[in-house]
Amino acid sequence: MTRTNDLLHLLNVQFPIVQAPMVGVSTPQLAAAVSNAGALGSIALGASTTQQAQEMIQATRALTDKPFNVNLFCHRPAVANPVREATWLTHLAPFFAEFGTQPPASLTESYKSFLANETMLDMLLTEQPSVVSFHFGLPPVKWIHDLHEAGITTLACATTPEEASLIEAAGVDVVIVQGVEAGGHRGVFDPKHDEAIGTFALIQLISKHSRLPIIAAGGIMDGQGIAAAMRLGAAAVQLGTAFILCPESSANAQYRAALQSERAYHTQITAAISGRPARGMVNRLFTDVDRPDVPALPDYPITYDATKALSAAANAQGNYDFAVQWAGQAASLARALPAAQLVETLVHEWHSENG
Amino acid sequence: MTRTNDLLHLLNVQFPIVQAPMVGVSTPQLAAAVSNAGALGSIALGASTTQQAQEMIQATRALTDKPFNVNLFCHRPAVANPVREATWLTHLAPFFAEFGTQPPASLTESYKSFLANETMLDMLLTEQPSVVSFHFGLPPVKWIHDLHEAGITTLACATTPEEASLIEAAGVDVVIVQGVEAGGHRGVFDPKHDEAIGTFALIQLISKHSRLPIIAAGGIMDGQGIAAAMRLGAAAVQLGTAFILCPESSANAQYRAALQSERAYHTQITAAISGRPARGMVNRLFTDVDRPDVPALPDYPITYDATKALSAAANAQGNYDFAVQWAGQAASLARALPAAQLVETLVHEWHSENG
Repeated sequence: MTRTNDLLHLLNVQFPIVQAPMVGVSTPQLAAAVSNAGALGSIALGASTTQQAQEMIQATRALTDKPFNVNLFCHRPAVANPVREATWLTHLAPFFAEFGTQPPASLTESYKSFLANETMLDMLLTEQPSVVSFHFGLPPVKWIHDLHEAGITTLACATTPEEASLIEAAGVDVVIVQGVEAGGHRGVFDPKHDEAIGTFALIQLISKHSRLPIIAAGGIMDGQGIAAAMRLGAAAVQLGTAFILCPESSANAQYRAALQSERAYHTQITAAISGRPARGMVNRLFTDVDRPDVPALPDYPITYDATKALSAAANAQGNYDFAVQWAGQAASLARALPAAQLVETLVHEWHSENG
Repeated sequence: MTRTNDLLHLLNVQFPIVQAPMVGVSTPQLAAAVSNAGALGSIALGASTTQQAQEMIQATRALTDKPFNVNLFCHRPAVANPVREATWLTHLAPFFAEFGTQPPASLTESYKSFLANETMLDMLLTEQPSVVSFHFGLPPVKWIHDLHEAGITTLACATTPEEASLIEAAGVDVVIVQGVEAGGHRGVFDPKHDEAIGTFALIQLISKHSRLPIIAAGGIMDGQGIAAAMRLGAAAVQLGTAFILCPESSANAQYRAALQSERAYHTQITAAISGRPARGMVNRLFTDVDRPDVPALPDYPITYDATKALSAAANAQGNYDFAVQWAGQAASLARALPAAQLVETLVHEWHSENG
């Protein structure tokens, strides 16, 4: 377990378990509980302004003196396309009509890419969280260098061996290997090109080619999964869906109920919710809003702006058929435990597997 | 490892490794070499007449006195649809034209489903191979009962927990759990409904719900993979792509070269080759013959009849852009070793992982 011990040393944590950053689900309370339990908690800053992000870091720090991870979205900044956006809103109009309302008149890019937000970098260099992770791509090499100079460890998500190579070449410290099982947004650099490689294959493919330590993600829910991922070449694991049912998450009651129902057995990937491929529990966003013949999607996250309006309109009438409920393929194995107890359980199960 | 030992006893083999049946690739020589090395070799009878199938069983038996597995296709028998078939041939015409030729005038169902071929059952009851496995669905329960009465162990492939439940309810002895990583044809019962669940998630999901022993398939290439699959709940593993480069397989030189090239890193699933979803190395069959806007596909295997004609026309001119080259997502890890040496290597690696 040299590779695991080396990574534990680098991250300065006790257990090789990362709670995945999940916009809208993870909270400072969740991250702090996980970090206080000896694993690595994460907060998701990808959809926040710099000020909100700074407040979330400070809120987390008030709850733990242990290391935690802050996650940024490095997608290509959205390009507005009023014709495409209007066409998409026309496509959505019948769904809004079901709730007696209309789509918004126009769509906005409701949050900026980290790539277009250098004040976020300045804030990170000031706050100096222990770990910063990148999703959807990479920031400029200079920024990675600056973060390292500030004593920050960097992580980036790969869905293919090619992306892992780019991550290694950019000087990032650790690669998060995200298999197709994973819930939420796929980390693909180019949203139009998703190889959809399963966790089982991807860990092996990347561990054969990359010198970076691997944090494996996608379908890992318990100690068995942790042990298996490590057999395949991972030094640590990242679990997202496994933490949604923790009381410290901000998942609402409907989302929690769905995760504990038969619906948890049926997930799909769609780009029609946000503009980028992401996996969630199948509802009408997957079967009706997305269809083989849908018009071209507005850029991420402009598409998401429309979905959020539709979800809100439906939810306001007690309808959750258009709720955004991300989940991975092994979601039915999620357990409703306080975060600290979940970490303890995972560690205990993992040690039993190796015993 | 009780579950592994129990399965070894049931299958009467020394090692918990199955060489996957692969129409057009696996041979009696490959199956016999694998079985003689202490694992379970397989021959693929799905595309054979009863007489050809019987000859293949006898040819294998002449090369080994060890148990081997024979695989049957249990898809819904094809229904001819002349309009749909003509439309598909029109879609293919420009590709045939590239090679100065025309599509066939019509398409045929070039092999029958086991479900529509009771003489195949009679032959199996006469020949009594040790193991019979089912792909694409299940035969009537009565047939499974008859095979058991003849002392034959039965296996069936599941791609979802629901399919595993049907397999268990039908009285089959062992479930083959096929993750989305796997090369070749997906075992999905209904080709229009593929959940595409990754190996890592699927082994766990099925092992939590099924009492049947699990043979895991999809992305397993070496001893690390064997150990990991067993951690997740498998009793044994099935490897297909890992055996293609064996000299005993009937893969041609172009297929072998592709598997050992960069092309092995890029696989996709398409139904446009055969009429059922299957994973192979990306070439023009995936990018040009299949497209988002293709006409409705003829039934499996009628679609395949057209592809085979196109492949032959291209190959005749030295063009392999339309060659059918199935492969799994971890194909780049395949090794060119004689089958006996590959089995020995896998066992050695697996034991090292557990040591």
